[in-house]
Amino acid sequence: MLVVQKYGGTSVGGLDRIESVANRVIKAKDDNKDLVVVVSAMSGETNKLVGYADSFTSNASKREYDMLLSSGEQVTASLLAIALISKGYDSIAMSGKDAGILTDDNHTYARIESIDTTNMQKALDNNKIIVVAGFQGANANGDITTLGRGGSDLSAVAIAGALNADICEIYSDVDGIYTTDPRIEPHAKKLDSISYDEMLELSSLGAKVLQNRSVELAKKLGVKLYAKSSFSDDKGTLIQEESDNMEAVVVSGVVLDKNQARVTLRGVSDRPGIASEIFTSLADEGIVVDMIIQNVGTTDGLTNLGFTVPQNDFEKAKELMEHFDHDIHAIDFDFDVCKVSIVGVGMRSHSGVAATAFTQMAKDNINIEMISTSEIKISMIINDKYGELAIRELHKIYNLDK
Amino acid sequence: MLVVQKYGGTSVGGLDRIESVANRVIKAKDDNKDLVVVVSAMSGETNKLVGYADSFTSNASKREYDMLLSSGEQVTASLLAIALISKGYDSIAMSGKDAGILTDDNHTYARIESIDTTNMQKALDNNKIIVVAGFQGANANGDITTLGRGGSDLSAVAIAGALNADICEIYSDVDGIYTTDPRIEPHAKKLDSISYDEMLELSSLGAKVLQNRSVELAKKLGVKLYAKSSFSDDKGTLIQEESDNMEAVVVSGVVLDKNQARVTLRGVSDRPGIASEIFTSLADEGIVVDMIIQNVGTTDGLTNLGFTVPQNDFEKAKELMEHFDHDIHAIDFDFDVCKVSIVGVGMRSHSGVAATAFTQMAKDNINIEMISTSEIKISMIINDKYGELAIRELHKIYNLDK
Repeated sequence: MLVVQKYGGTSVGGLDRIESVANRVIKAKDDNKDLVVVVSAMSGETNKLVGYADSFTSNASKREYDMLLSSGEQVTASLLAIALISKGYDSIAMSGKDAGILTDDNHTYARIESIDTTNMQKALDNNKIIVVAGFQGANANGDITTLGRGGSDLSAVAIAGALNADICEIYSDVDGIYTTDPRIEPHAKKLDSISYDEMLELSSLGAKVLQNRSVELAKKLGVKLYAKSSFSDDKGTLIQEESDNMEAVVVSGVVLDKNQARVTLRGVSDRPGIASEIFTSLADEGIVVDMIIQNVGTTDGLTNLGFTVPQNDFEKAKELMEHFDHDIHAIDFDFDVCKVSIVGVGMRSHSGVAATAFTQMAKDNINIEMISTSEIKISMIINDKYGELAIRELHKIYNLDK
Repeated sequence: MLVVQKYGGTSVGGLDRIESVANRVIKAKDDNKDLVVVVSAMSGETNKLVGYADSFTSNASKREYDMLLSSGEQVTASLLAIALISKGYDSIAMSGKDAGILTDDNHTYARIESIDTTNMQKALDNNKIIVVAGFQGANANGDITTLGRGGSDLSAVAIAGALNADICEIYSDVDGIYTTDPRIEPHAKKLDSISYDEMLELSSLGAKVLQNRSVELAKKLGVKLYAKSSFSDDKGTLIQEESDNMEAVVVSGVVLDKNQARVTLRGVSDRPGIASEIFTSLADEGIVVDMIIQNVGTTDGLTNLGFTVPQNDFEKAKELMEHFDHDIHAIDFDFDVCKVSIVGVGMRSHSGVAATAFTQMAKDNINIEMISTSEIKISMIINDKYGELAIRELHKIYNLDK
């Protein structure tokens, strides 16, 4: 059985933590597993290096910046291999480049193009525990590249895919994916398993565990993920292709996003191209629009168009919309909103999930300002002050605490 | 004009120091020089990394140890290139491996076998300032190796040789080579130039500037060295093949070595093989013998054999010599000795240099216990307490303060 394990920054945050990771790796090895271990930089190290570069310029040469930052993971990988070897376990440390990770030229946010597994395969054939510096690769020119935020997870998933590993275990200081944020609802329960798509939709619940970019890659490569704490022996959450068993669960989780502000354009001319103009102008300013709602136009050729943006883009969005004055009757803004989402693959085959949510909101006298649904998600924009209440009520009504 | 500059740990010891190195490099570039800059790790960094590894084992896997340690220079090289680029100077950072430095497999103390200058030549053709991480290379397998103590100097000298550079400037916190240790003789003068051989013989004076290994390589490759402080604009010392001009100077420097202990074996059987047995037994214990003096045997077939060892090997050497009991009449030890050496290529063509020294010692009532001479050096073992006096007197008598 081939297992890829990935340990994040806090999991290797000090020499004692690296020691404890070594013991965890050894336990798996003693269990007859073949192992590739991907490590992040010791927590704080990357920030320290970024600070160094920032002291010279806020716009560092990206090639050299990557060479600088990649040293952090190189240190951890070397140390973990040293620790394993000192405990009598044959091991080899590899940089991303050594591990054959070929990326494009996009320094500081490179995309993995392919993995030449020759070196890793040879080491595995020799029964060595491979320790790979995460977050990095090299472009065709041989220059070191880094993969951007969450890059070590990407390294791990890509390696698991390339080596056809049985599972990719992601260790962090979070012990799995919960039905909702336990700070809002103390009865939140850890999920045993969840599908890739649900994980993607619940991203804010899993953000500290796995970024969407890695989940998407795992889905694409069919890599089973297992999110688990490196600070305990508790079971974690398995993230995989949805199974029949999963569909029995209608709703997997409910999630609150407070970083939302609503813009509604009333009486928009129903002429072709107006929506395009509006969203192009927002995109040009780098504003990431989340929900977009448009109803069919009324008989007077006018329509209402609503969307949400992150709160710190609110003022800019407001200003931009005022340029569309002549095409719009009225603009209606609401900063004090939040988004409540219900996620679950089971919704596909179960009707009534949405109705349950709307009924509950009505019972609680919570006005729903916007609704958007996808195959496995229902999102509602409501007044900010009801966010936590809505999450607790929905958690209960869908029996997520059971 | 192609210049290789090397900056040691204290010269790049902090971000402000790296900034100041960048300005120094830029000044040379503005002066129309092509530049390859070799950097050490920021002072303290290598020790920090060594401490990390030591926390796991005192016997770390050498391959991983090299990967770990090499990150220190990688950081400095990236940062200096970032600083240069941010100031508008095109620059490229390279690891030792990127720079084409091929070494043998001897991890932690690798020997440079060859340098493939393709990458560096290309960068120079594009008018880029190359910044190379010192102290490191890669073996034929592509694994990172390190070059041992003083490794960054070796990198610089080897690169200067491979690129046929006009000069290799070694920057440190010491501003050149002096006629003697200024702490002993305040009138010590900085030398404008010195030959490789003199530098090698004066190694203890230059130890903080350049290790013998680098001087030997420079001599072999015909690389002109210029030792200079990075903390001032004072002139430094040029180290090169001896020139006619140099020979005008009879004595270049006088040097004191306090780390000496003398062993004299009296009445040693003058049979073949006895010296070999004695020095083999010392070598087997890892004792590095410095001076060895043997006179021709007397008519009774006995000879006296004297040698010196570092003081911390004295007890072990004493013990070993007692095993030769049956071959030796008496053993005479002296811990309280020091070695005073007079160095100068001019000695070759000037008689009387030795006589001057012996006369001065006699005038000062200093007894000379042992004498050893080479083409460009006269060394005397004298009582420890007269060491500093002897240095001052010799410095004066050879007019080194002029």
